[in-house]
Amino acid sequence: MRVGIVGSTGYGGVEIYRLLSKHKYVEECIIYSSSESGKLYEESYPHLTGSHTHLKSIDVDQIENDVDVLFLATPPGVSTKLSPQFIERSVKVIDLSGDLRLKSSHTYKNWYKREAAPADLLNEAVYGLCEVNHDQIQSAKFIANPGCFPTATLLGLAPLTKAKAYKEDSIIVDAKTGVSGAGRKASLATHFGEINENLKIYKVNEHQHIPEIEQSLTEWNQDVAPITFSTHLIPMTRGIMSTIYVTLKKESQINSLKEMYEAYYEKSPFVRIRPIGSYPATKEVFGSNYCDIGLAYDDRTGRVTIVSVIDNLLKGAAGQAVQNFNIQNGYEEITGLDSYPVYP
Amino acid sequence: MRVGIVGSTGYGGVEIYRLLSKHKYVEECIIYSSSESGKLYEESYPHLTGSHTHLKSIDVDQIENDVDVLFLATPPGVSTKLSPQFIERSVKVIDLSGDLRLKSSHTYKNWYKREAAPADLLNEAVYGLCEVNHDQIQSAKFIANPGCFPTATLLGLAPLTKAKAYKEDSIIVDAKTGVSGAGRKASLATHFGEINENLKIYKVNEHQHIPEIEQSLTEWNQDVAPITFSTHLIPMTRGIMSTIYVTLKKESQINSLKEMYEAYYEKSPFVRIRPIGSYPATKEVFGSNYCDIGLAYDDRTGRVTIVSVIDNLLKGAAGQAVQNFNIQNGYEEITGLDSYPVYP
Amino acid sequence: MRVGIVGSTGYGGVEIYRLLSKHKYVEECIIYSSSESGKLYEESYPHLTGSHTHLKSIDVDQIENDVDVLFLATPPGVSTKLSPQFIERSVKVIDLSGDLRLKSSHTYKNWYKREAAPADLLNEAVYGLCEVNHDQIQSAKFIANPGCFPTATLLGLAPLTKAKAYKEDSIIVDAKTGVSGAGRKASLATHFGEINENLKIYKVNEHQHIPEIEQSLTEWNQDVAPITFSTHLIPMTRGIMSTIYVTLKKESQINSLKEMYEAYYEKSPFVRIRPIGSYPATKEVFGSNYCDIGLAYDDRTGRVTIVSVIDNLLKGAAGQAVQNFNIQNGYEEITGLDSYPVYP
Amino acid sequence: MRVGIVGSTGYGGVEIYRLLSKHKYVEECIIYSSSESGKLYEESYPHLTGSHTHLKSIDVDQIENDVDVLFLATPPGVSTKLSPQFIERSVKVIDLSGDLRLKSSHTYKNWYKREAAPADLLNEAVYGLCEVNHDQIQSAKFIANPGCFPTATLLGLAPLTKAKAYKEDSIIVDAKTGVSGAGRKASLATHFGEINENLKIYKVNEHQHIPEIEQSLTEWNQDVAPITFSTHLIPMTRGIMSTIYVTLKKESQINSLKEMYEAYYEKSPFVRIRPIGSYPATKEVFGSNYCDIGLAYDDRTGRVTIVSVIDNLLKGAAGQAVQNFNIQNGYEEITGLDSYPVYP
Repeated sequence: MRVGIVGSTGYGGVEIYRLLSKHKYVEECIIYSSSESGKLYEESYPHLTGSHTHLKSIDVDQIENDVDVLFLATPPGVSTKLSPQFIERSVKVIDLSGDLRLKSSHTYKNWYKREAAPADLLNEAVYGLCEVNHDQIQSAKFIANPGCFPTATLLGLAPLTKAKAYKEDSIIVDAKTGVSGAGRKASLATHFGEINENLKIYKVNEHQHIPEIEQSLTEWNQDVAPITFSTHLIPMTRGIMSTIYVTLKKESQINSLKEMYEAYYEKSPFVRIRPIGSYPATKEVFGSNYCDIGLAYDDRTGRVTIVSVIDNLLKGAAGQAVQNFNIQNGYEEITGLDSYPVYP
Repeated sequence: MRVGIVGSTGYGGVEIYRLLSKHKYVEECIIYSSSESGKLYEESYPHLTGSHTHLKSIDVDQIENDVDVLFLATPPGVSTKLSPQFIERSVKVIDLSGDLRLKSSHTYKNWYKREAAPADLLNEAVYGLCEVNHDQIQSAKFIANPGCFPTATLLGLAPLTKAKAYKEDSIIVDAKTGVSGAGRKASLATHFGEINENLKIYKVNEHQHIPEIEQSLTEWNQDVAPITFSTHLIPMTRGIMSTIYVTLKKESQINSLKEMYEAYYEKSPFVRIRPIGSYPATKEVFGSNYCDIGLAYDDRTGRVTIVSVIDNLLKGAAGQAVQNFNIQNGYEEITGLDSYPVYP
Repeated sequence: MRVGIVGSTGYGGVEIYRLLSKHKYVEECIIYSSSESGKLYEESYPHLTGSHTHLKSIDVDQIENDVDVLFLATPPGVSTKLSPQFIERSVKVIDLSGDLRLKSSHTYKNWYKREAAPADLLNEAVYGLCEVNHDQIQSAKFIANPGCFPTATLLGLAPLTKAKAYKEDSIIVDAKTGVSGAGRKASLATHFGEINENLKIYKVNEHQHIPEIEQSLTEWNQDVAPITFSTHLIPMTRGIMSTIYVTLKKESQINSLKEMYEAYYEKSPFVRIRPIGSYPATKEVFGSNYCDIGLAYDDRTGRVTIVSVIDNLLKGAAGQAVQNFNIQNGYEEITGLDSYPVYP
Repeated sequence: MRVGIVGSTGYGGVEIYRLLSKHKYVEECIIYSSSESGKLYEESYPHLTGSHTHLKSIDVDQIENDVDVLFLATPPGVSTKLSPQFIERSVKVIDLSGDLRLKSSHTYKNWYKREAAPADLLNEAVYGLCEVNHDQIQSAKFIANPGCFPTATLLGLAPLTKAKAYKEDSIIVDAKTGVSGAGRKASLATHFGEINENLKIYKVNEHQHIPEIEQSLTEWNQDVAPITFSTHLIPMTRGIMSTIYVTLKKESQINSLKEMYEAYYEKSPFVRIRPIGSYPATKEVFGSNYCDIGLAYDDRTGRVTIVSVIDNLLKGAAGQAVQNFNIQNGYEEITGLDSYPVYP
């Protein structure tokens, strides 16, 4: 199997390279760049010293010849333009951008402030939330890899939502992320002096991942109302925690939240449910593809608190992309991802 | 004015010393320690090199002779024992522990898992939330300095609560703190290798600051129901952010959240309300006594998101203690606290 | 006294503002900006919320009317152009850039890769290393405020150098700095994802502070040979440590390094010499104007290790600038700087 | 192949487990603990959730039955007592402690302040610096895995030392380490509030790794004189950088430092030499077994600056232990270690 990566200068792209260059079914991993073709990859990323890989320019016909599956880790709008060309050439595409995750072009336009992709392309795209959409992914030609916040949040909410166990207008998601989620582009917002020893909140109820989360939730329970969602920037590089609050319906009869979640994720090798009273920390999934979930019920308020953590660059981006690649191509789901988190 | 500090080995105590040793109405600042009497303070805290202050042992009669006001920054239970002796000797006490903040001994016992202080002592104590209880503080002999989370949370909620503007059962507080809140005692929970590049949640609905918050809220609006409250450990040293979610009542007619808050805090030099669309970050109050508040209303959900930040060791402990000292003793409220945050 | 700051958008400038806006002899502190005139300062720096200060445009005549002393915290080359205009208008200038620190225009050109200032301007400038050049500073109209690395390094080396106690070709300086030294400008080099949990070395034997250090050293002992100097970027915001290694001459008879240093800095309120066996950490001077020095002699090798720490934005920039301002204008040296470090 | 780990509660032990539990030639990886036998390992290390491994008590006979190779990641003195029992039982031992690295019991006693191991045990132990002692390791029954600072420092110095290219009394090593090197034990020295946003120097010329470094250096060139060595604590979890300064002999004729080093490490898969003018950062080896080396020569001073970085828990501990295991047992040297660093 030969694979290619477009958009390799960012953190998502370089993590795909790290995973695929050692993947046992990947014969060759070619990286493409419009801006830096010809350059040695390890000049941009010295941790790859010795990989001796040169960036190639983006030539659609050449790529068709080169690769079987193409990963797009590109800025907004690029995938909308590029991916149709590969789909018609029978190159499978796994897209890490937000371009093709929303089925409604109206919603996309509202939240992303740009034109949506054509409807047929949106229809072609399978939303690659592996644990939930496993079957569609197996036959997908085009996979829209989920966003980082949606991955953590939706895996945290899926079992209770499908069981219609909570009041549909009670969802509050207080999300936290490490800085690598903002990408490698230099800006005041990623300047060490502004981030270190600091805690910021941003995009209060305005994050473009909100409609992506709501799209899946309403697919699972059409009565789900708009959610409250805010994101915090944590002075760390990797990791996302979604702290999720929902109020149980009075008639909900849940003996064991833990067992409910364990049953739902029984066949999911990357979801780990913590014992009641124990909560996952982001470092406990650092460098891995795991999503760890902790649960608490408070009888003073009738609310459940769900704590869901992932490594934003892995389960929230490159790792889930490789997991999708495995499912799509019939490999064992854990291939190339079967390692414990790096701790401490 | 001569002042004393008991419990100077902790981070709260050393910050009181830093502030009071340069306070223009403080002639002498004496520090007392049971465990390290005789020792030079700067051996424990080399940043104070040159202060040449020795720790004195705790002798109640001697302290009565030495000081006019005594600050207690002591572990749980110590203040309950020590403070009555000073009150009967007419030494004013400002207590930073949680011993005397709760008026109900039953509630104290439930949450602190230890016996409460005698009822007369609890009655004597004035809850030193400066911006709200300013008048009682002026005549207080015994001040219970608020906890760090309650300070940030209550200042964030006071105006809306007193206006009875939100549904009383809708309060969710997602709190975040730097590590210094856990004190200087070494433990696995404060080990750098466990905290750095990590984000943890702890004490979900079990934090002892919950009843302290609820006590003031119900004082302001007796219909307030139990709150949902969780705390997160952020890989930074100082700073607290309370992200607070409430659902407005349908009949609430609030034209401008910002103006409402500005009016409420008009005479409060340490509360700064941010422009709508702008939210405070913890570093923007680092090293200062400010509490900065940002506000957002989401018409999709009818919820208000309140963001309240403080430096946990200053407005959340030592700074507010000095502010209480100023109010109690008739000094200008900002004396010794009139400095901007240290940024970056 | 009215003061002005040009270059207030950087970290050095904002720290000067923090110090001078609360300085008891400063009536007004005006800030000037070419790029952002008219803007409210606290929009760029929300920690100053409530200061209500607007940036003014740079108009030389207006500035002459406005201020008595002008601080320049400007990029390379700006001071060379601006300062002559103020000197001829009898506005005192304290310049934080590197433009006028080197007396040799040839050396400047070699290391800074740009044209040096005119010779008469270079001659006018007094090198503002307060502890050593105190007397010249008192009568200086133009002060070249020292660089951050030179301040830490020269204060660490001054006593031993003036005593000619070490082999002149044995100086090795292994310097370490926090990220704020690189300024507020966004770049990959200051990106959180590249700095956090990382340790980098840069400018090995190529740093432009090398000739500045050598200039003072050879002034104190003309036999001093070129030094070895490297700088490391530490994942922290503030703080510099210079670890300095020199080999004592065989005939050196130094009974007590500590007493030697204490005697030399007897009248220097901001230099603190640590007890033998104890070494300063950068956090122990954080937020203060102190320079703390520790010393060790190793009889296995005949070498002395000198550890000198400062807060790079204070004693290494804004703090020393205010100290120079105090000396220059006849105020007590510690005015506006008399606070302990903020710890932890 | 069955392997065991004694001392699994520390950071070194848990990293050995992470590597060996996925090692393709390791059938079973058993972990032993004196203090926590019976406990589920993932209770101490939740990042291993799902590994379902219980700690077993330390019973020498049982261990003999259980395992072929035993890793000791134990506190000082334990290995001296335990390892002889395994050696006589023909269990191969790889010891990560400092107990058996020094051949001279006199030197050990001087620096470690405790009794050395018996002479025959010291003689049996092969010093496991893989790149240099590859051949002895192949036939070793007992391997003393090198310390973290010695690994980085010796790999940085080996080629120049063996070539006798520098003045033997000119070695200065300015070492820097992340906090995980201090182990998982809670202490004030590892408290987040004391380490974060701080830079400390410690053990100036007193570190117990000094004789370990000198032992190899003098083995390679008997004229090498005592070194100057100091260690700095960096506010990060993992990573060591040794910045090494040596003065070249006048007669040294080195055309290309880079080629000299590349030739020396030609067959070493984990040593990467950087291009001249480029220096490695610790994060560029994070989570990997690489040692990256950068080199600079300064003709102003005649000195070479060598920059050598490793991940202290991998190449400086667990990774090199597994590398030794591979060499010792005839596996390809990179087995189980063949992954790129995790970046960012």
